[in-house]
Amino acid sequence: MADGLLDVVGIGNAIVDVLSHADDGFLSRHSLAKGVMSLIDARRAASLYAAMGPAIEASGGSAGNTVAGLAGLGSPAAYIGRVRDDQLGGIFRHDIQSLGVEFDNPPATEGPATGRCLIFVTPDAQRTMQTYLGAAIELGPEDVDPALIARAQVTYLEGYLWDPPRAKAAFLKAAEVAHQAGRKVALSLSDPFCVDRHRADFRDLVARHVDILFANEAEIMALYEVPDFDAALQQVRGHCEVVALTRGEKGSVVLAGDEVHVIDAEPVPRVVDTTGAGDLYAAGFLHGYTQGYGLARAGRIASIAASEVIGHLGPRPETPLGELVRQRLA
Amino acid sequence: MADGLLDVVGIGNAIVDVLSHADDGFLSRHSLAKGVMSLIDARRAASLYAAMGPAIEASGGSAGNTVAGLAGLGSPAAYIGRVRDDQLGGIFRHDIQSLGVEFDNPPATEGPATGRCLIFVTPDAQRTMQTYLGAAIELGPEDVDPALIARAQVTYLEGYLWDPPRAKAAFLKAAEVAHQAGRKVALSLSDPFCVDRHRADFRDLVARHVDILFANEAEIMALYEVPDFDAALQQVRGHCEVVALTRGEKGSVVLAGDEVHVIDAEPVPRVVDTTGAGDLYAAGFLHGYTQGYGLARAGRIASIAASEVIGHLGPRPETPLGELVRQRLA
Repeated sequence: MADGLLDVVGIGNAIVDVLSHADDGFLSRHSLAKGVMSLIDARRAASLYAAMGPAIEASGGSAGNTVAGLAGLGSPAAYIGRVRDDQLGGIFRHDIQSLGVEFDNPPATEGPATGRCLIFVTPDAQRTMQTYLGAAIELGPEDVDPALIARAQVTYLEGYLWDPPRAKAAFLKAAEVAHQAGRKVALSLSDPFCVDRHRADFRDLVARHVDILFANEAEIMALYEVPDFDAALQQVRGHCEVVALTRGEKGSVVLAGDEVHVIDAEPVPRVVDTTGAGDLYAAGFLHGYTQGYGLARAGRIASIAASEVIGHLGPRPETPLGELVRQRLA
Repeated sequence: MADGLLDVVGIGNAIVDVLSHADDGFLSRHSLAKGVMSLIDARRAASLYAAMGPAIEASGGSAGNTVAGLAGLGSPAAYIGRVRDDQLGGIFRHDIQSLGVEFDNPPATEGPATGRCLIFVTPDAQRTMQTYLGAAIELGPEDVDPALIARAQVTYLEGYLWDPPRAKAAFLKAAEVAHQAGRKVALSLSDPFCVDRHRADFRDLVARHVDILFANEAEIMALYEVPDFDAALQQVRGHCEVVALTRGEKGSVVLAGDEVHVIDAEPVPRVVDTTGAGDLYAAGFLHGYTQGYGLARAGRIASIAASEVIGHLGPRPETPLGELVRQRLA
């Protein structure tokens, strides 16, 4: 296994989520931009945590959630990220390795604590994320093992990696190694404000380095600074081999050359918390893609995986995803 | 508030729960006694955690869950327990204080890490608990502030406190202070195996020190070594002012002198995880009791509080309990 072929290696900010219910009044009292991810420093993280209600902790990180989902679907996967040798770092490592995901970066023995994301889930099931990157802020190209990248059919990168200063070098190194090995590079645009922060870089990446692009409506419109989804869709066509655009309850659209697949959202009895929805969509899609199932079926698996994670609190599946997909596709 | 009257002060082992789904095969492969709490050392905790699937972390501890529930119901409450100055200790403190519960014991600066309980939730929603007491093992009478005990209408003690060597002295000190101040002492028997470990002590406690007793069927039968519930019920009558006996889906029975109230279990759409059910029953009951609602209504509130916590993963309420009770009793 340790040297076998992998479906996906994910690179991301290793984060433990701290999830709590909150109302809109809390968000406005603390000036939190609803539905998006904002970066905060250690001081703000401490003061916001002090104001936060009772919480649960769950391993997270966008790419971490995606490789966790892939493992649950039966796809061999690996992860590259940076934690510290503290209790939260131990939790992150345990959770990802217990799914069979390879995660071999040793914990940092000095510097900031393991990163965490304070997530406020409002009654409408939206999540508002405040991230303290912690140890993840020092992720660099030295953390990327070229041999690991070369073993994976797809190297999956979260757009959030553009935030820490040296991670973009790690990102570009991984993309280069992957392409030299004849592999594919996938990118998630992560968050509309993240796109705003790095628009020129992201456009260049999408045009030159990315084979498979994931984005939601707000992110793809932010990328091309256009006011509607169809205009964004026309812009992105042809830039990447495959583009998967998610639209919440309106489902998703998958594009590849002249192929266009419109995929329904999977029904969910009660949407509790949308944390991880995009990450699990990517997991389901990349599972189908690497298994060679065709884009329509990959999109369907993506929708099923996303539907599981929004039915409960937390960013990773609570039930066996592979079984769920088999039932739903039967 | 800091010097006001409290409804309840809870004393317990301060524990962070680590919750994961597992099947019966896992339990038997690792020789875990289903449905009960077993104590494990640091080494066993590490090896079992390594074998455990992906988990979520949530503040727990039996009495901790009870005071959290009380705070959610609007009852002023305090907690006495022992954590270390580590990340899990910070999580425990945050979660209980964020509900408005007073928790003033400073964290230990040396000795074992904050305690944790590995909880395996099987598909039948039963929980099997493996507890590493950690910093809680050194809880002693010096941690009990007599002024705090005297402020509370009820001092609530978890039976699990009989496990760490010096906690029973803390327990007896608290009971004595409470009675001297004209307050009530409540005890939960916690677990049938805990009763087996400390039967003689528990019988003496119940006969001499406890005003309000909580137990489930297995625990009360273990206490008196009788084979059926009715025999146990006859034994316990008259030993305490109030006895609340829980019977899972069969509801509960509340006894006080000649009063007997048979209370239905509250219907639950889907039982996901029974962790915390007994603790939240006690919270609901003690809320009703300290508010002077009468035993039948207190039992009803207890059932409602227990029903919330078994509908999701984790030992503490996810939704506002006070509101839930108002809706259900309306």
